[in-house]
Amino acid sequence: MTSALEPVWIGVDVGGTKVLAGVVDDAGTVLATARRATPGRRVDIRQVEDALKAAVLEVADGRPIAGVGVAAAGFVDAAGERVMFAPHLPWQGENVRARLEERWGVPVVLDNDANCAALAEWRYGAARGADSAIVVTMGTGIGGGILMAGQLVRGANGMAGEFGHMQVVPDGHPCECGGQGCWEQYSSGNALVRFARQRMGEQPSVLEQATGGNPDRVTGPMVTEAAEAGDMVARAAFASVGDWLGVGVANLVAAFDPEVVVIGGGVSQAGDRLLEPARNALQRSLVGAAHRAVPPIVSAMLGPEAGLVGAAELARRAGDQPRR
Amino acid sequence: MTSALEPVWIGVDVGGTKVLAGVVDDAGTVLATARRATPGRRVDIRQVEDALKAAVLEVADGRPIAGVGVAAAGFVDAAGERVMFAPHLPWQGENVRARLEERWGVPVVLDNDANCAALAEWRYGAARGADSAIVVTMGTGIGGGILMAGQLVRGANGMAGEFGHMQVVPDGHPCECGGQGCWEQYSSGNALVRFARQRMGEQPSVLEQATGGNPDRVTGPMVTEAAEAGDMVARAAFASVGDWLGVGVANLVAAFDPEVVVIGGGVSQAGDRLLEPARNALQRSLVGAAHRAVPPIVSAMLGPEAGLVGAAELARRAGDQPRR
Repeated sequence: MTSALEPVWIGVDVGGTKVLAGVVDDAGTVLATARRATPGRRVDIRQVEDALKAAVLEVADGRPIAGVGVAAAGFVDAAGERVMFAPHLPWQGENVRARLEERWGVPVVLDNDANCAALAEWRYGAARGADSAIVVTMGTGIGGGILMAGQLVRGANGMAGEFGHMQVVPDGHPCECGGQGCWEQYSSGNALVRFARQRMGEQPSVLEQATGGNPDRVTGPMVTEAAEAGDMVARAAFASVGDWLGVGVANLVAAFDPEVVVIGGGVSQAGDRLLEPARNALQRSLVGAAHRAVPPIVSAMLGPEAGLVGAAELARRAGDQPRR
Repeated sequence: MTSALEPVWIGVDVGGTKVLAGVVDDAGTVLATARRATPGRRVDIRQVEDALKAAVLEVADGRPIAGVGVAAAGFVDAAGERVMFAPHLPWQGENVRARLEERWGVPVVLDNDANCAALAEWRYGAARGADSAIVVTMGTGIGGGILMAGQLVRGANGMAGEFGHMQVVPDGHPCECGGQGCWEQYSSGNALVRFARQRMGEQPSVLEQATGGNPDRVTGPMVTEAAEAGDMVARAAFASVGDWLGVGVANLVAAFDPEVVVIGGGVSQAGDRLLEPARNALQRSLVGAAHRAVPPIVSAMLGPEAGLVGAAELARRAGDQPRR
């Protein structure tokens, strides 16, 4: 346990709807959390900074702060200084790291949320001990992170790991990114919902009951529950999304050949209902499957706190060495 | 110049049709080469070893050998010890590195040819000075290599960089690998030839003349020459293969975010005829193009000797440090 006077390391996950701060010990355990609503995109950036500060101070609970790691749902530059763009936050190129460090007077590090989650799974979770890993985060879309020799691969622009926007279907479904046929259009929470909406009328179903027959009311968690309750449409939705997950993972494995593939994010809570079709598709699609160890596809272990755990880990690492 | 008594570093590229050995100096310059035919797949492995030895001894020309790097057209394990499988060679899991080292009495290192070519382009060629690079080698199919911080990413099985077998078209063209819709079915020497064969009859063309109207006689180099001579079908073939090149590169860039993308291999000799449509497709397809530096797509610089230059470089590196 952390004593009252021992400095604490804090991770903060700044998402589209909420700010979640946590004190994380050196075993990756989250000792306490505090939550604030994300103020939104059309606000002064100081409002976001204030929300972060409130969550950090609450969770620190009077203890000195050794450092804060911030995991942001957006594009963070390769230096870990700026949030270049974030769909649900007002940051647009601001030097978020330096601003927070100056306002708070404690060391701050910054990275994107998918990278932080990937680092946490590698350090404390499902990819622990692996030399290389790919972590695919399935929420409404697909995010991801790559680890090589225990280091995050950030990329020249800090944008490595944007797996969701690899094109898997020529002239396929249009994507919010402006492209067409992106992987996340076929394998994500949104894809699950689209599939269920389109097929819902085919037979009497739990989903039809839950939504009063209105496809627009279908949500991702609703599909997960309906599948558990035996709904055939919901199960078919998972079979499709899981198969596409495996096809995309096979592409990533062909390119990287990682030791393990970790699937996190909300959709992954369906467990083997998602992962079994993915494993089958990987085995079927992966080049040279007979001449290699096909990597296991496993569930993430750290749940929705992975982002803040990874952010705290980055802060701790930065405290042990000169600024990266 | 290397003096007669100074030990030389030698790289050997063991391809499907020829064995090419070269003495390489510490600036990456190939000082001399020697060539032998590859004995084929259904021969005793000693015949292949003998061909390698003959080429190495010829090129060494009596000088002492500091070390030999072998670039093999096949799957090499992550440890750089064994050739697990090679479509045109008899090796099937043999410990090629140790066998050659024991037979020859000089230090030997081993890697696959695409990795060696990628390392050479990073050290001496088109990716020189880049922190991260992707090298795509377009021959009859697509091979590749990934460099991060000046190190080859080999992968857990030594199979990283198999870009050609990423699926880009669901239920697409069948591939030799057993899959369907692999990238190399749409962007490679074979894809160029397929396109030209299918379209050849559409209008009077240089290709028709060169082949006497027989589509089966079309070859990759023939398409390149016909495009230069103004043949519209051949030009359309490059436009298609180049566009697909850019689409696949966009997928790799979404995942890795490298500083530069290098295109090598025989097809890349067409230069901008291939690369301009690829650049356009990358700009069009890449996620977040407005928020990032889109990496340049450039031609490889080292030509068909890239593999042996990289192999010699690996041997030199191994000589400077304990065995990897």
